[in-house]
Amino acid sequence: MYNLEEGVPVERHTEQSIRRFSESVLESLGATEEEAKITADGIVTASLWWHPGQGQGLEKLFRYKRRILNGGIRPKAPMVWLRDEGSIALLDAQKGLGYVSANKAMEKALYKAKDTGISMVSVCHSNHFGIAGYHAKWAADAGMIGIAMTNAGAEMAPWGSVIPILGTNPWGIAVPRPNGKNPIVLDMALTQSGKGMMRWYERQGSSMPKSWALTVSGRTTEDPKAADSGVLLPMGDYKGYGLSLITDILTGVLTGSLFGSQVFRDDTNFDVAHTLIAINIESFMEKTIFGQRLELLLTDVLNVTPIDSELPVQLPGEAEQLRALKRRVEGIPVDKQTVKGLRALADELSIPFLLEQAK
Amino acid sequence: MYNLEEGVPVERHTEQSIRRFSESVLESLGATEEEAKITADGIVTASLWWHPGQGQGLEKLFRYKRRILNGGIRPKAPMVWLRDEGSIALLDAQKGLGYVSANKAMEKALYKAKDTGISMVSVCHSNHFGIAGYHAKWAADAGMIGIAMTNAGAEMAPWGSVIPILGTNPWGIAVPRPNGKNPIVLDMALTQSGKGMMRWYERQGSSMPKSWALTVSGRTTEDPKAADSGVLLPMGDYKGYGLSLITDILTGVLTGSLFGSQVFRDDTNFDVAHTLIAINIESFMEKTIFGQRLELLLTDVLNVTPIDSELPVQLPGEAEQLRALKRRVEGIPVDKQTVKGLRALADELSIPFLLEQAK
Repeated sequence: MYNLEEGVPVERHTEQSIRRFSESVLESLGATEEEAKITADGIVTASLWWHPGQGQGLEKLFRYKRRILNGGIRPKAPMVWLRDEGSIALLDAQKGLGYVSANKAMEKALYKAKDTGISMVSVCHSNHFGIAGYHAKWAADAGMIGIAMTNAGAEMAPWGSVIPILGTNPWGIAVPRPNGKNPIVLDMALTQSGKGMMRWYERQGSSMPKSWALTVSGRTTEDPKAADSGVLLPMGDYKGYGLSLITDILTGVLTGSLFGSQVFRDDTNFDVAHTLIAINIESFMEKTIFGQRLELLLTDVLNVTPIDSELPVQLPGEAEQLRALKRRVEGIPVDKQTVKGLRALADELSIPFLLEQAK
Repeated sequence: MYNLEEGVPVERHTEQSIRRFSESVLESLGATEEEAKITADGIVTASLWWHPGQGQGLEKLFRYKRRILNGGIRPKAPMVWLRDEGSIALLDAQKGLGYVSANKAMEKALYKAKDTGISMVSVCHSNHFGIAGYHAKWAADAGMIGIAMTNAGAEMAPWGSVIPILGTNPWGIAVPRPNGKNPIVLDMALTQSGKGMMRWYERQGSSMPKSWALTVSGRTTEDPKAADSGVLLPMGDYKGYGLSLITDILTGVLTGSLFGSQVFRDDTNFDVAHTLIAINIESFMEKTIFGQRLELLLTDVLNVTPIDSELPVQLPGEAEQLRALKRRVEGIPVDKQTVKGLRALADELSIPFLLEQAK
């Protein structure tokens, strides 16, 4: 699926060293130990699950630095609950770290759903929250069904135009499986792909799928360069546009944060909003029965004959889970340019450069 | 967008006569006056919003008759609340009419969300519930945000195969707008299109978009006939597959109904499940402020220059709302074959044939 090393050299580093180094960078930028741990875990997860071109791994540290120094991200932000009643709550993240605010929100959502069956906890005045599926997975790890969504900078046009008004506005949905099996984790941007992957294809000098983006004049293209000034295409055509619009309403509009073309534009005030939903399975049926029923469905899904015998059918999240297993053994691929930049960053922050290549 | 009358002749009938005739057919099949009213309103809405090829209009009456006679649908079903606690509830529809059970469920969801901010009310042992967006719109009409989803007969394959295990599993999401404006209503099957539309193209003798379906051997095709024995393609490729799987979990698996390839297969026991969610805007912010913020976003969306100046950007649901306005004046297109069948049905049930052509 991914062309990982076609022309863009990568190095493989250990999970442990990526985690320690990320924590160390974040702490030296002012994050508390807890904030650094939470955020680094997101970076490590993205590195284990995803292609480095998706830009959610170590590449993020440069942005964290820039944004923290600009005041766009505030470490140790005094986050405050604006509302907390019945099955809903609203957290003002006070420009704090997105992983941290979403983590607090999902924790609250799980607590509430245990009581009432379903809960919705939203976050305003936050930042980039990383992987939607990662936040949803917290719920699944606690035995509940989780949904996480966020708004994001405008890169998608209303269907039928090429003016970016809406974000990729990703959704994560996670469902726990019984007997310690990995949960189902659907993680999807509401665009067909992202700008990060487009730029990776550009660096590789290869063409990209025509379904990803439009040029500024509204034509489809396989040339990542021609698409860079254009817009990303929604998943499922007008359906993805509709879903992205509604996500912006459920996050930005409903919480008091920025939305549309305004969100994530000002480097000193990103003002992103997230919405986390938790559903308590036990409010509907005994968890063991749910687990048995779920596995019946999944067995049917996994037992189908694939079109290509080398590409067996997978559950949402399974590709990422397999990739993580492999990378824990072989090391995590990091763009060599990123590694170089991180060395300079360590020098600048006067901290040790901790990355260790996998053997 | 639609090729309405290319080779498939239609007649235009009045909304009023379609409503009265639908009610009359349903009552003569054993539905109560209230059940007939609710179900006929769904049929009328589908007729106003959609292409007759989508099969949710008057065409449905033949199926209702067959299913009621088979025992697959029970008019006057003694629906019963199995759970009703906190922000959730579960309704056993006892094989009753899908529109009726979903209506009851959304009513309960609205009531609960008013108290707790968000609610989820599910329905098991139900039937085809018609238009997902129609059920979501009830919430918007009551000033809340509504989500409605259902599982459905297997027509979609797990991504990478051609074995149908999952349904089109449609979602509806509706958001109220201020000042009496029509709500936003996103209504989407999780497939690119449906078998009904494919068959309409086949009757027209025209080719269909290649993105709609695969042949049994897993090839894309523009020939509706070749696709008929194949499977529908999910929206957004593997993302639509993931969303459909999760929808089946949130409906069939979690409620105790059938799921996967089993649901909607036995004409005497469809056992479909629905999930309705309501979100109370006022739990998050004053409704007038929400309305102002929403309109700012929608103004930005609607003001973008379209790629094709004759195709202005629309909000989700707007095309349907404009179509409804037009059809209220010009009459609602009904397939002539359907009209002929309905005449025979009226005779068979010994009721007057009430359809009136629009002038």
